Amino acid sequence: MNGPLRLHGYFRSGAAWRVRIGLNWKGLSYESLSIDLRTGAQGDAAWRARNPQAMVPALELPDGTLLTQSLAILEWLEETVPEPAFLPADPLLRARIRAMALVIAADTHPVQNLGVLKRVEALAGADAARDWARQTIVQGLSACEALAAREAGPFAFGAEPTLADILIVPQLFNARRFGVALSAFPRILEIEAACAPIPAFARARPEVQPDAD
Amino acid sequence: MNGPLRLHGYFRSGAAWRVRIGLNWKGLSYESLSIDLRTGAQGDAAWRARNPQAMVPALELPDGTLLTQSLAILEWLEETVPEPAFLPADPLLRARIRAMALVIAADTHPVQNLGVLKRVEALAGADAARDWARQTIVQGLSACEALAAREAGPFAFGAEPTLADILIVPQLFNARRFGVALSAFPRILEIEAACAPIPAFARARPEVQPDAD
Repeated sequence: MNGPLRLHGYFRSGAAWRVRIGLNWKGLSYESLSIDLRTGAQGDAAWRARNPQAMVPALELPDGTLLTQSLAILEWLEETVPEPAFLPADPLLRARIRAMALVIAADTHPVQNLGVLKRVEALAGADAARDWARQTIVQGLSACEALAAREAGPFAFGAEPTLADILIVPQLFNARRFGVALSAFPRILEIEAACAPIPAFARARPEVQPDAD
Repeated sequence: MNGPLRLHGYFRSGAAWRVRIGLNWKGLSYESLSIDLRTGAQGDAAWRARNPQAMVPALELPDGTLLTQSLAILEWLEETVPEPAFLPADPLLRARIRAMALVIAADTHPVQNLGVLKRVEALAGADAARDWARQTIVQGLSACEALAAREAGPFAFGAEPTLADILIVPQLFNARRFGVALSAFPRILEIEAACAPIPAFARARPEVQPDAD
C-alpha cells in the first residue's frame, strides 16, 4: 500500500483495539487519529458526515476511502494481506471462529457500549447501568468460555491465535472495568495470558496508545 | 451435501430469517426446527448444552455439527457454495457491504432483541422498552439510509442484491412492529421493494414458515 493508513479510534475503545491488533498482526504501520469518546467528539457533524454511524473505529486508506465496523475492517485486512492469517483455511473452523467473534462483536460489546449505558443510566440510574454492563459481559463471556472449553488451548482455537482471540482480549478490559469476576472463566484467562506476550497484541493495548491519558 | 440441513430457528426471529434467505439464495433445501422464543424454549438445558448462547438460529449439518451466529453461517454458506454469490469479488466493496450488514447485525438487532427488551422493561416499564426498541432501530436504519444513499439503487449496493440486503429486510419487520415511521428512509424502502419479489427473500418471510401462527 502507498501512503499511510490512518486509524480513527480512541485508546479505550474495544472496537478500535481489535483493529489495532489486526493492523499489527499484518505488519501494517498506521497513523493514529484520536476521536475523544468522553467529550462526544464522535458525534461532531464533520465526523458524522464521513461515518454516518458516528462511531469509531474507522480505517482511512491513502486515497481517503473510509472503512467502518471493526469486523468488516478485519475481514478486509485478512483478504488483502492474507499472511499471516487470522482465519485458517477450513470453512467449518472459520465458521466456529467467526461465531465466537460474533458472540462478542454482536451480542456483547454493542449491548454494553458507552451509548447504551448512558441510555440505561437515564432510565434507571448509574447503579443499574453498571449492573447492566456486568450482566451483559457475564452472559457473553459465559458463552465464549463454554465454546472455548470444547477446544484445545491455549488460544481460543488451539495452538495458534485467530480472529476469536482478537475479539476476546479487548472485551476483558471492559469486564474488569465493571468488576466482572474473571476467575469463573479459566479458558478466557488462558487465552488472555497466551495473547499477552505477542507483539501484535501487546502494542495494541490502550495504555501504550498515543492518546492514552 | 449429503443428508438434510436442519435450521433451528423461529419464524419471527430476524436472525433466523437472514439464514433462511441465505439458504434459499444458495438453492439449499433444509428442514425447519422451531424453537419457540415466546415460551423461552431457547433457554432449555438440552438446547443450551448444544448452543451455549441459548439463542437461535443454528444450522445443523448432516453429521450433527451445529453452526451458530447468523453472520458466521452466512459467511460459511458463501465460502462453501460460492454461486450465486452474495458478496462481490472486490475487497473494498465487500468491506462496505459487510459494514452495512454489521450496522444491523451488531449495533441494531442485538440491542433491541427480546432478551434486551425484557431487561429494559424490568428496569423502567413496558413503554420504556418500546421506546428503547424504536430509538435503537431508528439509529441503525438512519446509518444504513445514509450509507445506502451514497450507492446506486435499487438494492443496497446497486443493481444486484448482496449480504447487506439480507440484513436490511428482516430488520424492517421489527421496525414496523415497534411503530418506526419508515417514510424517513426512502432508500431502505426501495431496497425492501426490490428484494420482495425475489424467491429467496419471499420464501424466507415469517408468515410462510411452518411454525408461523
